[in-house]
Amino acid sequence: MEKRILLTECADATGLIAKITDTCFSHGLNVIRQDQFASREDSKFFMRSVLEGDFANSGEIISEIKAKLPEGAKVSLNDLRRRRLCVLVTKEAHCLGELLMKSYSGALNADIVKVIGNHDDLRGLAEKFDVPFECYENADYSREDQERKVMEAIDRCDPDYVILAKYMRILSPGFIGHYPLGKLINIHHSFLPAFMGAKPYYQAFCRGVKIIGATAHFVTDNLDEGPIIEQDVIKVNHRYDPDTLAKAGHDVEQMVLLRAVNKVLDDKVFIHGNKTVVF
Amino acid sequence: MEKRILLTECADATGLIAKITDTCFSHGLNVIRQDQFASREDSKFFMRSVLEGDFANSGEIISEIKAKLPEGAKVSLNDLRRRRLCVLVTKEAHCLGELLMKSYSGALNADIVKVIGNHDDLRGLAEKFDVPFECYENADYSREDQERKVMEAIDRCDPDYVILAKYMRILSPGFIGHYPLGKLINIHHSFLPAFMGAKPYYQAFCRGVKIIGATAHFVTDNLDEGPIIEQDVIKVNHRYDPDTLAKAGHDVEQMVLLRAVNKVLDDKVFIHGNKTVVF
Amino acid sequence: MEKRILLTECADATGLIAKITDTCFSHGLNVIRQDQFASREDSKFFMRSVLEGDFANSGEIISEIKAKLPEGAKVSLNDLRRRRLCVLVTKEAHCLGELLMKSYSGALNADIVKVIGNHDDLRGLAEKFDVPFECYENADYSREDQERKVMEAIDRCDPDYVILAKYMRILSPGFIGHYPLGKLINIHHSFLPAFMGAKPYYQAFCRGVKIIGATAHFVTDNLDEGPIIEQDVIKVNHRYDPDTLAKAGHDVEQMVLLRAVNKVLDDKVFIHGNKTVVF
Amino acid sequence: MEKRILLTECADATGLIAKITDTCFSHGLNVIRQDQFASREDSKFFMRSVLEGDFANSGEIISEIKAKLPEGAKVSLNDLRRRRLCVLVTKEAHCLGELLMKSYSGALNADIVKVIGNHDDLRGLAEKFDVPFECYENADYSREDQERKVMEAIDRCDPDYVILAKYMRILSPGFIGHYPLGKLINIHHSFLPAFMGAKPYYQAFCRGVKIIGATAHFVTDNLDEGPIIEQDVIKVNHRYDPDTLAKAGHDVEQMVLLRAVNKVLDDKVFIHGNKTVVF
Repeated sequence: MEKRILLTECADATGLIAKITDTCFSHGLNVIRQDQFASREDSKFFMRSVLEGDFANSGEIISEIKAKLPEGAKVSLNDLRRRRLCVLVTKEAHCLGELLMKSYSGALNADIVKVIGNHDDLRGLAEKFDVPFECYENADYSREDQERKVMEAIDRCDPDYVILAKYMRILSPGFIGHYPLGKLINIHHSFLPAFMGAKPYYQAFCRGVKIIGATAHFVTDNLDEGPIIEQDVIKVNHRYDPDTLAKAGHDVEQMVLLRAVNKVLDDKVFIHGNKTVVF
Repeated sequence: MEKRILLTECADATGLIAKITDTCFSHGLNVIRQDQFASREDSKFFMRSVLEGDFANSGEIISEIKAKLPEGAKVSLNDLRRRRLCVLVTKEAHCLGELLMKSYSGALNADIVKVIGNHDDLRGLAEKFDVPFECYENADYSREDQERKVMEAIDRCDPDYVILAKYMRILSPGFIGHYPLGKLINIHHSFLPAFMGAKPYYQAFCRGVKIIGATAHFVTDNLDEGPIIEQDVIKVNHRYDPDTLAKAGHDVEQMVLLRAVNKVLDDKVFIHGNKTVVF
Repeated sequence: MEKRILLTECADATGLIAKITDTCFSHGLNVIRQDQFASREDSKFFMRSVLEGDFANSGEIISEIKAKLPEGAKVSLNDLRRRRLCVLVTKEAHCLGELLMKSYSGALNADIVKVIGNHDDLRGLAEKFDVPFECYENADYSREDQERKVMEAIDRCDPDYVILAKYMRILSPGFIGHYPLGKLINIHHSFLPAFMGAKPYYQAFCRGVKIIGATAHFVTDNLDEGPIIEQDVIKVNHRYDPDTLAKAGHDVEQMVLLRAVNKVLDDKVFIHGNKTVVF
Repeated sequence: MEKRILLTECADATGLIAKITDTCFSHGLNVIRQDQFASREDSKFFMRSVLEGDFANSGEIISEIKAKLPEGAKVSLNDLRRRRLCVLVTKEAHCLGELLMKSYSGALNADIVKVIGNHDDLRGLAEKFDVPFECYENADYSREDQERKVMEAIDRCDPDYVILAKYMRILSPGFIGHYPLGKLINIHHSFLPAFMGAKPYYQAFCRGVKIIGATAHFVTDNLDEGPIIEQDVIKVNHRYDPDTLAKAGHDVEQMVLLRAVNKVLDDKVFIHGNKTVVF
């Protein structure tokens, strides 16, 4: 039997779970797992259901569910196909490397269809895994042209998600607005909102923190302020300098990014205003 | 509006969520939060729903739900009253102290109605918080008599749960069988199943582990093998000896026990064979 | 044999460890444990040695060591007596409660000699443990007078350290300057430098972070910016609201404060500019 | 100026630190960082010093130090050259992949000079990184011959360390005894000593633990009982089945192995009986 993921998002109301599960039941679909959340502050309802059964008439199922929900409801029924990722990088290998490895081994349910760099350093790594690499050097273009080149390169490969895997250049609002919210995922090398902006490990060193972290988030045009998907930390101490903080931090960055991408690929992440619901 | 917790447990089947939420809906009850789980290996269904509304006819609601579920279903609708805890102790103060403090401050939704010791050391602590303390010294009774005395002391105060807060004496199957599974909660000072039995910190020292932990579990007549509710760990290193391991471990023990008791008091814990489902 | 802690702090130079340990050796003192750190950015040297032996001529030992070190060196040889703590509180019980419990049980090597509140709520708790409680209500005094009253109350009990255990009032530079740096220890209910200032749990809720934390630090006249002693975090998710974040955070706060105070009492913490060295 | 690591290991005695640092000082060597540990239970002394200076006469320095220490002292002065690793694998890619990535990016101070499999699955991965892969299939040889082939393959590449990166075959005492203790490093997919032996994730599932982990340890002829170098854990819950436990566990395994290998490459790990001292 096939499995699909039913995602529902709408204004909260009584009886939503009953209505949706009823419809599934009436179509012979079994709910294997279901998670739902209703926010108190703005009365939004989010539900993710893993269904098992025959989805021949999936269009009809979606319409039926929508008809029972408050106006403006979003309903989708996603299959489990491997998604397409485009990865943007600069010079650091660890995040790209982790994604390539997990895609290669099958632990990530996605193909990396292209890597785009604003430096050429990681061409060799991408090509080891037979992934096309395109480079648009900062030095070779005006800022606008470089961004346009990157955007065109992204669009040519038609990815489901664009992963900024330590892409060390600020993106313009125009670039960000070109993609729907939720399509761009960034890894920031600090435990946001601590140490926003540049050189977070140096900032952490100066402040003398005892824990450092990393944050994966959707990209919005407020730098480092998009909805957070996943965070993690490690303990550090006075012996760490900016370089050893960065080295230790890299391991957290790659794991936080991997977990965030996995959650997104599993359709477990809803965007809720400037926050996320992660089932 | 009143809040209650609906707990459902039965053989898995299609449409269970729809049936239960439908019934709630038809009685004007709003589902504020709901969690459910269906085990794959033995097809058991567990659901916890936080409901809001008028529960005047709660008996009827329960009957209606039961009628729609597979035979043998357990359904309950619990109010949020403060529960009654009886705490068993020996000499170590930290777990009892944490429970007393949190009950006193209101962070634990329970009253500690009695503390029973097999040593007299913690009488002063219990009495600071105006909790009756009864002592049945190991030295003053045969093993059977001491256990019987403790059991009678427990039963006199009619607790919802009995917490073994570092009660350092093995209980007989007769004692354990006197209480329903789920009523006795123990804190074990290791990350089970590592270091079962006596002196886990000394065992951890000898083995040279780099992490120690604590485990809160329901008590069954297999020592240290009951369903695990909560576990946590801390990192240690070669500088720790058995005493400093124990000191560091105490902080984990008290927090693991506190979190486990909180989960149980919130009706978030189901027993599933020799495991738990914790929502 | 007696144990003492030798603390050394000076400009870095070659041969410091040899010179100091030589002197100890020549006085028949055995080094049981030693930790040292030399900062690269400003060439400061810090060493903590646990010594065992006869300290009858400790003044002489200190002088001899000082004579061999760069000018301006700080050297002390501390015994392991129980220190005196004065605790400042407002309404929340958990941090005070943890300190009282651990002092009572012997797990904290200190006596709490006085609790001072700017509200009367925690009088009962302090008095359970036979600790004098003094209250200077915000409402009863001008800000200056209230601070002066608290300062006088502190000074009357002559504490080694003053612990701000969720004391929810900003202290004036005059108050802070009245005490040597390192004497005042605060617990802040966020993972600094994230969420400085008021209502950190509400800020964390609005930002949608997936981890919250707590920070114990020495107090300087830059609010929430003093040298950090200890930090820890716990994972949270979209289900948490500001109240449940606070409840979960309280457990982290009390443990972080306890660990920080324990480290300070063990003479393991050096202040290094706006940072700490914690052995 | 050159840096080297001085490692000292001997019976404990008074004045050891003074004697060693004195000698370094007299040769114009500066101690940048130093860690030492003396065990109480068996009076062993361990010290690691990072020295800076001119090591032209290093043989003389070592002899001088040895002459001042108790009989049987081990003293070495290691340069920071990249070490040689030989990695043994079966079918799972994540641990090998992590080591290859970090060696490639420079985050691991070692070259992987050969990968040896008892299945051919990971040939492609090794060869992507231009690392020779040799395969000795279980099916093609008797157990003794296969082990001998692997041993010969190891010895031909003359590695500093042999890493068992999920090599899923038990090694004979003969094989293990062929190498000095400390040369073979294994990653075990559980939080030892919990779940020793086969199928730890399945064991963890059956036991219903709330935390799983991984353990990197030196190999001795007691399976899964060698000195532990590094451990870490992650939280899990009732939703995990053996497969998803394994998937989540893989991320811990690769990080624990990476950290352990990094520590060993930094000469931070001493073997102390059946335990380790890790600075």
